Amino acid sequence: MPTPLLTRAARPSTFEVLALDERGQSVPTAIAGEHPLTLYLDKREIVTLMTLGAAPEYLAIGYLRNQRLLSRVEDIAAVQVDWSTGAVAVTTRSMADEGVALWDRANGEEDLAARLSRRTVTTGCGQGSLFGDLMASLDDLALPADARLSQEVLYTVMDQARRHESIYKVAGAVHGCALCANTGDERGEILMFVEDVGRHNAVDAIAGWMWLNGVSGADKIFYTTGRLTSEMVIKCAQIGVPFLLSRSGLTQMGHELARRLGITLIGRCQGKHYLLFTGAERFHGPGVTALA
Amino acid sequence: MPTPLLTRAARPSTFEVLALDERGQSVPTAIAGEHPLTLYLDKREIVTLMTLGAAPEYLAIGYLRNQRLLSRVEDIAAVQVDWSTGAVAVTTRSMADEGVALWDRANGEEDLAARLSRRTVTTGCGQGSLFGDLMASLDDLALPADARLSQEVLYTVMDQARRHESIYKVAGAVHGCALCANTGDERGEILMFVEDVGRHNAVDAIAGWMWLNGVSGADKIFYTTGRLTSEMVIKCAQIGVPFLLSRSGLTQMGHELARRLGITLIGRCQGKHYLLFTGAERFHGPGVTALA
Repeated sequence: MPTPLLTRAARPSTFEVLALDERGQSVPTAIAGEHPLTLYLDKREIVTLMTLGAAPEYLAIGYLRNQRLLSRVEDIAAVQVDWSTGAVAVTTRSMADEGVALWDRANGEEDLAARLSRRTVTTGCGQGSLFGDLMASLDDLALPADARLSQEVLYTVMDQARRHESIYKVAGAVHGCALCANTGDERGEILMFVEDVGRHNAVDAIAGWMWLNGVSGADKIFYTTGRLTSEMVIKCAQIGVPFLLSRSGLTQMGHELARRLGITLIGRCQGKHYLLFTGAERFHGPGVTALA
Repeated sequence: MPTPLLTRAARPSTFEVLALDERGQSVPTAIAGEHPLTLYLDKREIVTLMTLGAAPEYLAIGYLRNQRLLSRVEDIAAVQVDWSTGAVAVTTRSMADEGVALWDRANGEEDLAARLSRRTVTTGCGQGSLFGDLMASLDDLALPADARLSQEVLYTVMDQARRHESIYKVAGAVHGCALCANTGDERGEILMFVEDVGRHNAVDAIAGWMWLNGVSGADKIFYTTGRLTSEMVIKCAQIGVPFLLSRSGLTQMGHELARRLGITLIGRCQGKHYLLFTGAERFHGPGVTALA
């Protein structure tokens, strides 16, 4: 497939402001960037995302992927970010080659208008909008039954995530997501790391990067600093990753969806501690028969 | 004004599941509820919110208030939550008395359809959707110029928030918001406290409670456990509260908007520490001239 034309328009991630502390001292303080970015698909306005701006092209692609507004990455001809107008324009090959927007084609994305008209505002940090028919198609998502995670690799991922350079350490107010290997020499290592003011932006950016580079989720592990709500679990399933790890806790619906989708959900990953909630049959570690 | 008819349909906030810890021990673990709640205004579907369900009636009202989909609380005749269908129906007096939906009236909410068609997916946890024209009308929001906050009251609020009983302490995965007094004998005390899986739900629920009970924000202080992003700052201004405190950090756009709106923004409130970022002219404490 021909590579889409991409800008590389990351924004600076932190800015310094002055603050006063409790003793009245003036303290230079780094804060995280936050910028509106309006996404256009073949000139149609889709949504305005508030983002750190570290990976806006991947974010745009991953958003379209996870919202199922595009079904094939091959349809993308260009992704162009222009911060002076706060816009990212995604152009399909249909538009680029023939001047016809994808949804104006007879064989274009079905029911796109209907999907755009139904939105769910979800509990996630950040990009909290899942379009209409997504929940209904959950059961189509198949995760590899034979994937396994060992406690040793889990600890490697937790250690890698803890030591990774991050905006969070400098400025707080962001969530980080990491896609990690679960096979080969790089097992447990971070392959892609994205932070954003909304954790759903971070996972969407990773989803976009995976799509563009043809990276499968089947032999990967997904780590997030954020909470495991319904939307995080759904997005993990959408990118085909069977293992979802978090430093934080989870919600009841995150738990239920993980069970239904067959995701191995591990929360409260801190130091040498963790809690394995679902999908114990995929985990090689102490006591795994107790939940099965 | 006649009191609207309200259900009192809170959901249980926590559920117990079994988890396996790192030693293979089975650990009963409380997790936070998360439920879809679809909001209807005069039978028109507006949005589906994912919520803890602790204050669904206030959440519905506050959502309509903060999204500017209703301009007067007096227009509300009933707010009815039915968890068996996952729905909250808000009925206006126009609909209840005359059978005419508010937006079908010649003098109904202007441009409602246009506002519903433009949404911004913001960085907040949870309810991350601000409708179209909101940013444009920011400068209409006037906060009281003569409000003052002392360091002593700030410490009282921080202490109250830290000691407050919470779902967070039991199950994590939620954000809390507190509306506190800044006048009278209750100065620094919590008047209303709401937690939700999305922090924007929590602030919207407080906004709904304030609207229903005719509570002004001018002599109040708002505390949140969550990050101070653009949307949190906007919502604080919409409910008329001049002081916004957080245990967490802030983003650049949160900072800019607070400056523009004249909000006193204090982040990193932990123990006896805090950082005052904007609106120092309203603060009585050490070193306030340094930022002015």
